[in-house]
Amino acid sequence: MLSKAQIKLIRSLKHKKFRDKHNLFVVEGEKVAGELLLDAGNENSIYAVHSLYASSGWIRQNREILSGKFPVFEITMEDLEQISFLSTPRNVMMLIKIREMIFNPGFLQGKLTLVIDTVQDPGNLGTIIRIAHWYGIPNIICSMTSADLYNPKTIQATMGSFLSVRVFYTDLYGFLKDCYSTTSIPIYGTFLSGSNIYTCELASEGLIVLGNESKGISEELIPFIHTWLSIPAFPVQDKPDSLNVAQAAAIVCSEFRRRGL
Amino acid sequence: MLSKAQIKLIRSLKHKKFRDKHNLFVVEGEKVAGELLLDAGNENSIYAVHSLYASSGWIRQNREILSGKFPVFEITMEDLEQISFLSTPRNVMMLIKIREMIFNPGFLQGKLTLVIDTVQDPGNLGTIIRIAHWYGIPNIICSMTSADLYNPKTIQATMGSFLSVRVFYTDLYGFLKDCYSTTSIPIYGTFLSGSNIYTCELASEGLIVLGNESKGISEELIPFIHTWLSIPAFPVQDKPDSLNVAQAAAIVCSEFRRRGL
Repeated sequence: MLSKAQIKLIRSLKHKKFRDKHNLFVVEGEKVAGELLLDAGNENSIYAVHSLYASSGWIRQNREILSGKFPVFEITMEDLEQISFLSTPRNVMMLIKIREMIFNPGFLQGKLTLVIDTVQDPGNLGTIIRIAHWYGIPNIICSMTSADLYNPKTIQATMGSFLSVRVFYTDLYGFLKDCYSTTSIPIYGTFLSGSNIYTCELASEGLIVLGNESKGISEELIPFIHTWLSIPAFPVQDKPDSLNVAQAAAIVCSEFRRRGL
Repeated sequence: MLSKAQIKLIRSLKHKKFRDKHNLFVVEGEKVAGELLLDAGNENSIYAVHSLYASSGWIRQNREILSGKFPVFEITMEDLEQISFLSTPRNVMMLIKIREMIFNPGFLQGKLTLVIDTVQDPGNLGTIIRIAHWYGIPNIICSMTSADLYNPKTIQATMGSFLSVRVFYTDLYGFLKDCYSTTSIPIYGTFLSGSNIYTCELASEGLIVLGNESKGISEELIPFIHTWLSIPAFPVQDKPDSLNVAQAAAIVCSEFRRRGL
């Protein structure tokens, strides 16, 4: 049985203000819970568990991986329905401590990195993190105006990939200006018109800037982009205006990786 | 000012049962409304408008494209908030008559066609329709167990591309069995293991089967698939289990089209 205070705390974590205040975020589902519990036993684990809420059945089946280092609450499905952010609640929910990730410029060396300029939909950000994981892109740099990594919808859409991809938030203008003037890392951006991504030369090291869902890449960032990439549409009369940013990210990552495989 | 009956009707269209009963679905937003109104003037237009609900400002600006063939209701933003399915309501909402689309086997000849096996999330289906439009894929065949085209979330995620791509619902077992045994059209499917899509031969005519978000392609359909395609992950130790289906669709469509461009 959950206390009113617990329910209030968990529900409040829908909002960034309360996630920041309590330094906690929510993870739901058996698969991610399993991965987190395995990872929590690891010395280098990024995330620490604050508490776990699960059905009696789940607890029975997973007793071995529960370490005793954090409180476990056995709750009913009615309780889970009250605290879940999903339309169909799962058997387990965890509160996880937010850990500050420290950026190191060396992370960019020899690697592909996604740079997210004001992607506002948490589902889009989450699926971008998932595709980055698929293609072995270890770091994502987001503008402060992008969706929050710890929004329950972002976390859900990553399907566990937030455990493997580091996501940093920073002022992109300063960050890109710095990369542009002090490093030789190529900076790519996706635009509606630019070099055909299918035939353009693509390096195995670089920053790839993806823009806002409706406005694209901010004007102030454009001077720092070396190569404008575009995904050609198949010639049709009534070509759509744009692609979904998470689908564009998938196509762009696919093209960069195809060259190296 | 909207009547209670109007509000009740519009809100009920969230559910397929009532969309089918009233033969109506909802479209929101200025861009799609504009396209629909232009299309409605066209003799070959697929969709007929039932009614339109908009702010006084929108009506003033768009008087020229309002044909007088359907009722227009000037409503307040408070009214729009009551009937909208979006978290941020737009200035205009339309009710559109559902039109039965008649499938013609000739539609498959010489073209790429997506075949959707139980994609359940309306947002995923909508973005798949959007990517099909981008790559000039004119037809999508869905299993009866897939998300509904006319779900407000599907329509919203298409960003207007539902006007350009035909979406049919049918029993996929019978459909694929028929294509397999009576035509020479190649049938591709996406799997977690299969031929590397980057190096495999891909035709400019074919059916491309995409499977359910968690279960993939149904077992009963597998005998009809000529070529198993897979999207290779970049070699990482903790490779994720799968890709988001809408992102996989984007990568697959991109690969098919890249060869022909």
